[in-house]
Amino acid sequence: MLEKIKSPSDIKKLSQKEIDNLVIEMRREILRECADGGGHLASNLGIVEATVALHRVFDSPRDSIIFDVGHQCYAHKLLTGRYDKFSTLRRFGGISGFTNREESEHDALTAGHSGSALPTALGIARANAQKSNDNWAVAVIGDGSFTNGMVFEALNCCAETNSKLIILLNDNEMSISKNVGAMSGYFSRLRNSRKYFRFKKTFQNVVSHMPGGKKLVLFSYNIKEFFKRLLVPNNVFENLGLYYLGPVNGNDEEKMEALLREAKTKNKCTIIHMLTLKGNGYERAEKHPENYHFTSRFDINEGVKSSSEQSYSSVMGEYLCEIKERNPRICAVTAAMEKGTGLSVYKDKYTDSFYDVGIAEECAVTFAGGLAIGGMLPVCALYSTFMQRTFDQLLEDVSLQNTHVIMAIDRAGLVPGDGVTHQGVFDVAMLSAIPGTVVYSPESYSEMKYSFDQAEKGEGLWALRYPKGAEADYDRSVFKAIDDEKTIFATDSEDAEIAVITYGRITPTVLQATSLSGRKVRVIRLLKVNPIDHKTVLSLCNNAKILVVEEGVKRGGVGEAIAAAAGQADYKNTVSIHAIEDGFVPHGDLENIMDLCGFTAEKIAEKIKDL
Amino acid sequence: MLEKIKSPSDIKKLSQKEIDNLVIEMRREILRECADGGGHLASNLGIVEATVALHRVFDSPRDSIIFDVGHQCYAHKLLTGRYDKFSTLRRFGGISGFTNREESEHDALTAGHSGSALPTALGIARANAQKSNDNWAVAVIGDGSFTNGMVFEALNCCAETNSKLIILLNDNEMSISKNVGAMSGYFSRLRNSRKYFRFKKTFQNVVSHMPGGKKLVLFSYNIKEFFKRLLVPNNVFENLGLYYLGPVNGNDEEKMEALLREAKTKNKCTIIHMLTLKGNGYERAEKHPENYHFTSRFDINEGVKSSSEQSYSSVMGEYLCEIKERNPRICAVTAAMEKGTGLSVYKDKYTDSFYDVGIAEECAVTFAGGLAIGGMLPVCALYSTFMQRTFDQLLEDVSLQNTHVIMAIDRAGLVPGDGVTHQGVFDVAMLSAIPGTVVYSPESYSEMKYSFDQAEKGEGLWALRYPKGAEADYDRSVFKAIDDEKTIFATDSEDAEIAVITYGRITPTVLQATSLSGRKVRVIRLLKVNPIDHKTVLSLCNNAKILVVEEGVKRGGVGEAIAAAAGQADYKNTVSIHAIEDGFVPHGDLENIMDLCGFTAEKIAEKIKDL
Repeated sequence: MLEKIKSPSDIKKLSQKEIDNLVIEMRREILRECADGGGHLASNLGIVEATVALHRVFDSPRDSIIFDVGHQCYAHKLLTGRYDKFSTLRRFGGISGFTNREESEHDALTAGHSGSALPTALGIARANAQKSNDNWAVAVIGDGSFTNGMVFEALNCCAETNSKLIILLNDNEMSISKNVGAMSGYFSRLRNSRKYFRFKKTFQNVVSHMPGGKKLVLFSYNIKEFFKRLLVPNNVFENLGLYYLGPVNGNDEEKMEALLREAKTKNKCTIIHMLTLKGNGYERAEKHPENYHFTSRFDINEGVKSSSEQSYSSVMGEYLCEIKERNPRICAVTAAMEKGTGLSVYKDKYTDSFYDVGIAEECAVTFAGGLAIGGMLPVCALYSTFMQRTFDQLLEDVSLQNTHVIMAIDRAGLVPGDGVTHQGVFDVAMLSAIPGTVVYSPESYSEMKYSFDQAEKGEGLWALRYPKGAEADYDRSVFKAIDDEKTIFATDSEDAEIAVITYGRITPTVLQATSLSGRKVRVIRLLKVNPIDHKTVLSLCNNAKILVVEEGVKRGGVGEAIAAAAGQADYKNTVSIHAIEDGFVPHGDLENIMDLCGFTAEKIAEKIKDL
Repeated sequence: MLEKIKSPSDIKKLSQKEIDNLVIEMRREILRECADGGGHLASNLGIVEATVALHRVFDSPRDSIIFDVGHQCYAHKLLTGRYDKFSTLRRFGGISGFTNREESEHDALTAGHSGSALPTALGIARANAQKSNDNWAVAVIGDGSFTNGMVFEALNCCAETNSKLIILLNDNEMSISKNVGAMSGYFSRLRNSRKYFRFKKTFQNVVSHMPGGKKLVLFSYNIKEFFKRLLVPNNVFENLGLYYLGPVNGNDEEKMEALLREAKTKNKCTIIHMLTLKGNGYERAEKHPENYHFTSRFDINEGVKSSSEQSYSSVMGEYLCEIKERNPRICAVTAAMEKGTGLSVYKDKYTDSFYDVGIAEECAVTFAGGLAIGGMLPVCALYSTFMQRTFDQLLEDVSLQNTHVIMAIDRAGLVPGDGVTHQGVFDVAMLSAIPGTVVYSPESYSEMKYSFDQAEKGEGLWALRYPKGAEADYDRSVFKAIDDEKTIFATDSEDAEIAVITYGRITPTVLQATSLSGRKVRVIRLLKVNPIDHKTVLSLCNNAKILVVEEGVKRGGVGEAIAAAAGQADYKNTVSIHAIEDGFVPHGDLENIMDLCGFTAEKIAEKIKDL
């Protein structure tokens, strides 16, 4: 059936039986694609029926359906003319794993970070009101995102009458892993509230038994009974002036559709609380949704294998445990990135000093600052791309306070798969503008450990940034440490005609490039990328032509800092920068996007030859 | 009495009568100082009793009392050994108008931005728990800050038992101006809820009649009765797992003290909802608190005069109305900065397309992005320092979306009075790292209007930054526009030995400096500071020595961009940068801090001579 669906209008006329079959087919296709190429499986399996209902009730792209974060958009893509490209999902040149404005008029927002959907939908709704049209804006937001402050900031502005804005709270009791915090507990109480159970007998029950004693109860929705209990504001959302409907079984397409149509009749902003089953339809994912939030390729019959591969993340987690053993002041802080940052091992061992604030990076950083004021030594682990949320907090609540905080910045540099909203290419520019910030960019496990040792001994704000994945295997003995602190390294060939300055993961590629170039090149590698000991670095360059190769944006990066130092010092040769000119890099395998940005040995060699 | 109070311990033994007198004396001193030198009058008058109560019940600095934003810390300063310096408030070299860690051990946080107090206090509370001490952390947060997402992110993490953390919600029904949004309405309902009135008869009423039919009713608190109604969660805070106490009359010191002592006996995080009267004790401020939120010098008997002085802000507001007349797609967005950014005139005239999201800069920017997606042309007006909160939103939710949004950035560059947390010196660095952002730095009213015209005609993200205050009066005819777009200007003297490149407000000072220097200097002024047409600029410099003078941080600024271009172009002379090396600049008059940063004609002349 999917083949025939070229646009949402094609599903509007289908019978309920056809819809039921379509849903099964869509789920099968999502499972197949995630098994083939990896993707956000569990949440996408859970939201198929709701997506079908949305596209039957609303008229995209006239009506805007905005998925928060956007990772749960697979069913949406299948229904909006992208079935034929679905097997290119997350692949270089293929369709994105998130909603993307360049891909389809049905994607109103190029998404990737949490909390943006509601303020965006609110903006669209207000614009629709300005233009006096009848278009709707719908924000689909997972319960995990409700820990994000932006959602509340926008909720605070939603309560106006005649607003064609609907919020669909997709409550699957999970963000990436189990949700944390009071909101999560509140949703749970809301699901199980007495008031709700009072109407239980009129509800159809769907009981799914889960192992480990966990029982997930999904109730469908009875509209008539429900309205009775809406007379008195009785929950957070009603207190914020919204119309609250639910909870409803989001995996029942027919019921969802009825409720969405009902919501459209209201003259105020409505929030629909829908319960969905993460991993719905694939038993392994239903049982262990946390393992199927995101999957690499896997065999459908065998399920995902737990990876024991070493990575910067896993080494970080292990090493933090070692540091904690010798330094009881250590605490770990993250924002719903426990697994991804490798902190699970720390959490298991030192639960009492592990803090996960939910999807709330701003809070994570300021909270870490508070821990430091209180005398602890917090290590706050975030992905580079999400740390972008914390520019002001790092500046005002950490650096300015002159407290000792260590930022462990994972996924720094280019990242494959997730694409344009997830590239970690702004961190060096962002962090360098913050006074007094020490930024290290280690490029091996041992150097990462050394960086943590230095950060532990240091003062103020330290940021250690390292890429996704594993360390490279190459002969590092070509480099000699130049300074006592071991933050500047250089190859021999002091009489080089060209000095290439680089840092981080890209170093072995640069070394290869120098060989390919046929030129006499000295390679200088920086571990400490801010502040830079420019005098030493420039003297190592010895008035040769300088090329800075930087896996990050050019504006505000290391290259510009070196060029400024060279300009001031009357350096007798050119300083060129090979960095990312435009920070928006699409998805694909790491190889593809490295190539796209000019970071292959061949392309760097060309740059060297061109000097 | 104040003379004798050297530390909070000095007020612990006072009788209630002495406390009552002290409160009156403190209020008088705060009023005197604000009239003498300006300051945040109304909120400080309102919080005197609560501050006295806090310092009697808690043991600062062992216990941490953290004021959100920190502008309401005057009473706190008077009680913590700073009475003798109080007449230096906000003056250069004097004490800060905000809490400041460098000033006193009683200031746990150098504050200035909204929403930081609770995550910081939570961090301190968790650190105290780690260290198993008995210290308390108290966050004092105005109701206006409850529109800020960080507060909710932290609230979500507060609900744990045995947490020595107290939240004091200072509800004065105002942020800078009248609060907006649903939370504000919710607080109002909470104040007036039926449940509350049920116990009304046991409460002591303090009724203060206000003009215009407005009636503010403050109730004091009856503990015994109150606990009865805490059995059932009935409000947002209880739903978030907090212990809720209140509302209580925060202007009754004795009652406040009793309640704080009671809160200390709880074994879970408590939120105390306290009602205070903004401007308490000074009738003019009670009647018109919005005029007394912040005051310049004024005569106590006559009150503040409304200023009709023209400024960049007022011109912006007026001109936006003009643009709106010709372009109905225009909308105005701000985050509780309506008055400060000059938007009141727009709001009055075009209420329907004016949006104030409360103290929630992140939401403001993403919401503006949504308006743009919906086909409107939003102008989002924020202070430079608060825009720091929106790095990720500008990057991901605006720039990446390739939507047309105009940021009107007020208070760009150094700001007097408020000091270290309010300096607008990071915006150029921050904005330049965001791909495709056009940044204009107009230095006259007419140029500001021209910038808006250009921005209106443009595409993508435009940021127009301009300083606090009025345009300078000097002979601008020395400059000639070089490019067709009129974004690059230069003086004559093409055979100059030195080229000084600058932008924005500092331009006339640079011109003066060139005269003083006695050197032959060409001055190049940039209106468009990102992206820069380097080829044109460098050709204007004509291989003379370059000095970039920049009222902003050096790292990531215009100077580095020019140095990088010069380095690449094999420019035949030095490029020096005179900018702010450390972005943390204290408070004082503009003259003082300009001098401190080396931005006087004399100091710049020295830099020129030294080249």
